Amino acid sequence: MYQLGVVRRNIQRADPAAVEKLSAFGTATVHEAMGRVGLLRPYMRPIYAGAHLCGPAVTVLLHPGDNWMMHVAAEQLQPGDVVVAACTAENTDGFFGDLLATSFRARGAVGLVIDGGVRDVKDLTAMGFPVWSKAISAKGTIKATLGSVNVRVICAGAEVNPGDVVIADDDGVVVVPAAQAAQVADAAAARESNEAAKRAKLASGVLGLDMYDMRGPLEKAGLKYID
Amino acid sequence: MYQLGVVRRNIQRADPAAVEKLSAFGTATVHEAMGRVGLLRPYMRPIYAGAHLCGPAVTVLLHPGDNWMMHVAAEQLQPGDVVVAACTAENTDGFFGDLLATSFRARGAVGLVIDGGVRDVKDLTAMGFPVWSKAISAKGTIKATLGSVNVRVICAGAEVNPGDVVIADDDGVVVVPAAQAAQVADAAAARESNEAAKRAKLASGVLGLDMYDMRGPLEKAGLKYID
Amino acid sequence: MYQLGVVRRNIQRADPAAVEKLSAFGTATVHEAMGRVGLLRPYMRPIYAGAHLCGPAVTVLLHPGDNWMMHVAAEQLQPGDVVVAACTAENTDGFFGDLLATSFRARGAVGLVIDGGVRDVKDLTAMGFPVWSKAISAKGTIKATLGSVNVRVICAGAEVNPGDVVIADDDGVVVVPAAQAAQVADAAAARESNEAAKRAKLASGVLGLDMYDMRGPLEKAGLKYID
Amino acid sequence: MYQLGVVRRNIQRADPAAVEKLSAFGTATVHEAMGRVGLLRPYMRPIYAGAHLCGPAVTVLLHPGDNWMMHVAAEQLQPGDVVVAACTAENTDGFFGDLLATSFRARGAVGLVIDGGVRDVKDLTAMGFPVWSKAISAKGTIKATLGSVNVRVICAGAEVNPGDVVIADDDGVVVVPAAQAAQVADAAAARESNEAAKRAKLASGVLGLDMYDMRGPLEKAGLKYID
Amino acid sequence: MYQLGVVRRNIQRADPAAVEKLSAFGTATVHEAMGRVGLLRPYMRPIYAGAHLCGPAVTVLLHPGDNWMMHVAAEQLQPGDVVVAACTAENTDGFFGDLLATSFRARGAVGLVIDGGVRDVKDLTAMGFPVWSKAISAKGTIKATLGSVNVRVICAGAEVNPGDVVIADDDGVVVVPAAQAAQVADAAAARESNEAAKRAKLASGVLGLDMYDMRGPLEKAGLKYID
Amino acid sequence: MYQLGVVRRNIQRADPAAVEKLSAFGTATVHEAMGRVGLLRPYMRPIYAGAHLCGPAVTVLLHPGDNWMMHVAAEQLQPGDVVVAACTAENTDGFFGDLLATSFRARGAVGLVIDGGVRDVKDLTAMGFPVWSKAISAKGTIKATLGSVNVRVICAGAEVNPGDVVIADDDGVVVVPAAQAAQVADAAAARESNEAAKRAKLASGVLGLDMYDMRGPLEKAGLKYID
Repeated sequence: MYQLGVVRRNIQRADPAAVEKLSAFGTATVHEAMGRVGLLRPYMRPIYAGAHLCGPAVTVLLHPGDNWMMHVAAEQLQPGDVVVAACTAENTDGFFGDLLATSFRARGAVGLVIDGGVRDVKDLTAMGFPVWSKAISAKGTIKATLGSVNVRVICAGAEVNPGDVVIADDDGVVVVPAAQAAQVADAAAARESNEAAKRAKLASGVLGLDMYDMRGPLEKAGLKYID
Repeated sequence: MYQLGVVRRNIQRADPAAVEKLSAFGTATVHEAMGRVGLLRPYMRPIYAGAHLCGPAVTVLLHPGDNWMMHVAAEQLQPGDVVVAACTAENTDGFFGDLLATSFRARGAVGLVIDGGVRDVKDLTAMGFPVWSKAISAKGTIKATLGSVNVRVICAGAEVNPGDVVIADDDGVVVVPAAQAAQVADAAAARESNEAAKRAKLASGVLGLDMYDMRGPLEKAGLKYID
Repeated sequence: MYQLGVVRRNIQRADPAAVEKLSAFGTATVHEAMGRVGLLRPYMRPIYAGAHLCGPAVTVLLHPGDNWMMHVAAEQLQPGDVVVAACTAENTDGFFGDLLATSFRARGAVGLVIDGGVRDVKDLTAMGFPVWSKAISAKGTIKATLGSVNVRVICAGAEVNPGDVVIADDDGVVVVPAAQAAQVADAAAARESNEAAKRAKLASGVLGLDMYDMRGPLEKAGLKYID
Repeated sequence: MYQLGVVRRNIQRADPAAVEKLSAFGTATVHEAMGRVGLLRPYMRPIYAGAHLCGPAVTVLLHPGDNWMMHVAAEQLQPGDVVVAACTAENTDGFFGDLLATSFRARGAVGLVIDGGVRDVKDLTAMGFPVWSKAISAKGTIKATLGSVNVRVICAGAEVNPGDVVIADDDGVVVVPAAQAAQVADAAAARESNEAAKRAKLASGVLGLDMYDMRGPLEKAGLKYID
Repeated sequence: MYQLGVVRRNIQRADPAAVEKLSAFGTATVHEAMGRVGLLRPYMRPIYAGAHLCGPAVTVLLHPGDNWMMHVAAEQLQPGDVVVAACTAENTDGFFGDLLATSFRARGAVGLVIDGGVRDVKDLTAMGFPVWSKAISAKGTIKATLGSVNVRVICAGAEVNPGDVVIADDDGVVVVPAAQAAQVADAAAARESNEAAKRAKLASGVLGLDMYDMRGPLEKAGLKYID
Repeated sequence: MYQLGVVRRNIQRADPAAVEKLSAFGTATVHEAMGRVGLLRPYMRPIYAGAHLCGPAVTVLLHPGDNWMMHVAAEQLQPGDVVVAACTAENTDGFFGDLLATSFRARGAVGLVIDGGVRDVKDLTAMGFPVWSKAISAKGTIKATLGSVNVRVICAGAEVNPGDVVIADDDGVVVVPAAQAAQVADAAAARESNEAAKRAKLASGVLGLDMYDMRGPLEKAGLKYID
């Protein structure tokens, strides 16, 4: 359950070495390496093509139309952090723009994932400050109600705990629990190690049917070829 | 209430000096300067990144699947005008393409805002003719039913009167009533005048918590810090 | 009705000369040339701007979350083919990524239209392998259930038969039945032949009202001008 | 454009005799009698089957998640009034429940139309207090921000002015400008007067094709019968 | 591909005995008996609880906002028929109301399935004329454009051919190809024959885990119990 | 993060006395008593009007199109339990019908909350077995993939832990953490204790403006009355 009105100052960020390792992989690979869990809903889209980030989460819990807690969160940021902002109800207002991005960057944050709206998209793109959001909206927000910083949140359908590793790219956003970061990084590496070989085979015209030995299982499942 | 079958030839366009002033600001700033009203729904998106326009509205009321009135509107256009097209029901058909864009541009129009679909996106992008729309669709329309030109319309949830100033950019679309254009331009300018200073402070690491004196109000609201 | 568990090996692809002719036209023109039918729903969007393709369809029927049949389809591909993938229920999973794209390209396929999700968007963009999809999602799929290849499918609301011509661009996707390909190509050519002249007239300031002789019909329909 | 922070006390309610006349007709008939305009979006649904109302509008402009103005509106209600609540942004919170319904009813109001959420649906149903809304949600609202009462609003895509006649039933909600109420009531009556005769004919097996003389126009349009 | 402007007079309705047999089963059972295909999208909902129908399809292809073809279809109806109306584009207008229902019933039709809107819901409910639709809307339609009657259509994502059997109930709508009607009826009967025994077992407290012998497969799949 | 392939047999159900107390209140009251958190998204709707339940949660984590874990969950049910089913991705298939309901009821369960589809709605209604779901769909599911039972899940945007109290009625669904059940019940009781008095006052014509002393704050906020 959400805790309101709380800021946790000391959080356990995922091991930097594991974060570094994870940063080499895309969201698809990481999600597979975790056993196909951890993805945020696919409505979360980057504000510009080619955006990419990987870092430990500082979480923010917002109320609809109110971005007060974003300022509270700024103080808790350390270099390399990713801000993950959830909202107590569905909302598309523009909670975040170029001034907050300037502040977040000054504190070392590398990007934002927000289950809400963002504005000043042109400026953020020019700054190279990546944001994944549900909407783009010029609508401003007020600063009136207490949410929380660094509590467990549900963002776009996924649970995110402070310190978890967030990886985001053109394909979406995935979250790795801090305690599993090293192990997931290893699994991702193992997964990718033989992708080059597979790609070369497929590029040469070998079929997945043969490379993955699918013909037997397909026949057993009853697949019929008709001329 | 909508008037059907009417074309108003003489409309009161917003003061050109105020339009000129407003053109310096983004939609987020203008919407704030108006007291947070005037935005169209965030589903209105530009067909290419970086699109921007500012000008007085020539309004069009369309029926679903019928773009006859777009041709009627062309004759009413003056240099600098923005066409704002609403529809009597939800529809995503492609009401507008490169031929109409050629005609609108020949009359001096600077862009289109349409609560419906648009097509020939590649050509429009190459022409640099900006369009904000609800959808992109190749589906053509017929020319069979009377709508209106230069009547009050509701476009993507916002009221637009002929002559109102329309500002659109990557963040969306905002409408300023003609009579308030000068005053809103001044409010926008005032708002922006101290943004550079704020940005510099935030970039230097000053927190919004301190710059906006939020610590007291947050404590008073009951915010608790936990180590 | 869908046939499950079937792969048809010999399909009648549309006449290559007609495909070649059709490749010169955009989706808007082709859809008009067919009498305004054949378009897929406008939620089908290209993964990068400027994407374009034209070719005969190899169809795939998938189950939600299962891309097994994509591998079966690869073997049926011939140079120039377009894969059209439908799903037995709504689903946004990432059925397709860079490995399958490598395999499809090795077989000569020129692109994919899928009523589902796609991933590895960055790689696909770098490869220049165009995809039109309902969603972008990192979510992986399993290989467990039989669908079909080269049966009639319903993709994004449109019927597609194996061998039909698929044309896709920034405006969406349109399907031309193989038997009508030549005739539609001719109709499209006829439609475009006088577009250049129309465009020049409109660019010179001639109004559509006059060029299309609309003033009479508008008056007859009751349009009223007010000063 | 919306006016914020304003309560208009003296509004011109539509002529009671016209309201009385209009109350005999359904939304479909009234909308046709107005020339097919005036309908709210079809997402507005009654909270129970068989709900029906007709009366002059007292309008309320709300902010998302804030129902303060509903209490302000209560004081402006007169017997027979219908409250029409719009919102400055999309929101599904439960702005209205059994306590407000008790208060509105005590003032004589006959129902509510709200472009937002409602709660206490079971109690409202038991009271027989009809509500048309976009959503049902238990989520409560705060009382912190000024909206307005009795200003022009846009509710579910339709313009509503204080005093306009609102008619709502199982098919949706329609708004008749106060000044047109009498004339629309007459047109609705004319429209319905021959419906009974038509219904009897159709019930006896006469086809609409013959009753409406459609065979000629259909043949002229090119309809082909195939055996 | 859709055929426009065509009415097929002689269609092959499914065998009446098979229709009669199928009428004993719900949509869930029939869909399972067909191998889990044939369902329309779940957004198709009955206008009143408890609605049920089963009969051969007379298909109608409509254009958005135009119900002309519904009148053409009326003449092709025979006792027991179900009208299945598709639309060339997404549309929620009220294509059908109590007058058409009176006419359809006079011809013997038992109900309507429409991928669009319906109105006069109160009257249709009172008549006991069942309709499954995407929307309820008071918005009227015109009679101006040729669609077709008794051509193959795609309705809510499913292919429907004239004469196919349509079964609809509280759970949705399913279509059985005419040629498979008898066989699907038998499969449905087989499926239901042992449901009573299963229900009794489950009601007595036997677990599905045991009744379906799932414990072995679950253990093999790796399920772990934790105390 | 989700745990897959796990069944927890011993869960700490909320104190029965607190559950009993909470069962007296509606979702709106409970959600307010918790400080306005704990609600599931408003798309969760009961399958019949007047449905109500209150009990400790047995949670189920499903994969799209696969209801195997529902059978595993049945064995873990105790009298009074509420099954809360989440899904690893968005899906509207019919995971639950009358056979499972018979089994759940035999084990003592009082209802189901599922972020997916349900079928056999007519039978479930006749049984009086309440279900809150995202969709109604006849589409069947398979039994092939391991999910979990009694792990923490995210259901319709809310976190639910095994043993938490679930309250559901016509207004939606709310979840109370087991540890807070008694305290929330007390807060709910306190909240309701003076509602009767308020209702009586409002029914007598006293305005909320006066009863809640809003006139001062409204004036202070700048509200203007215009005659």
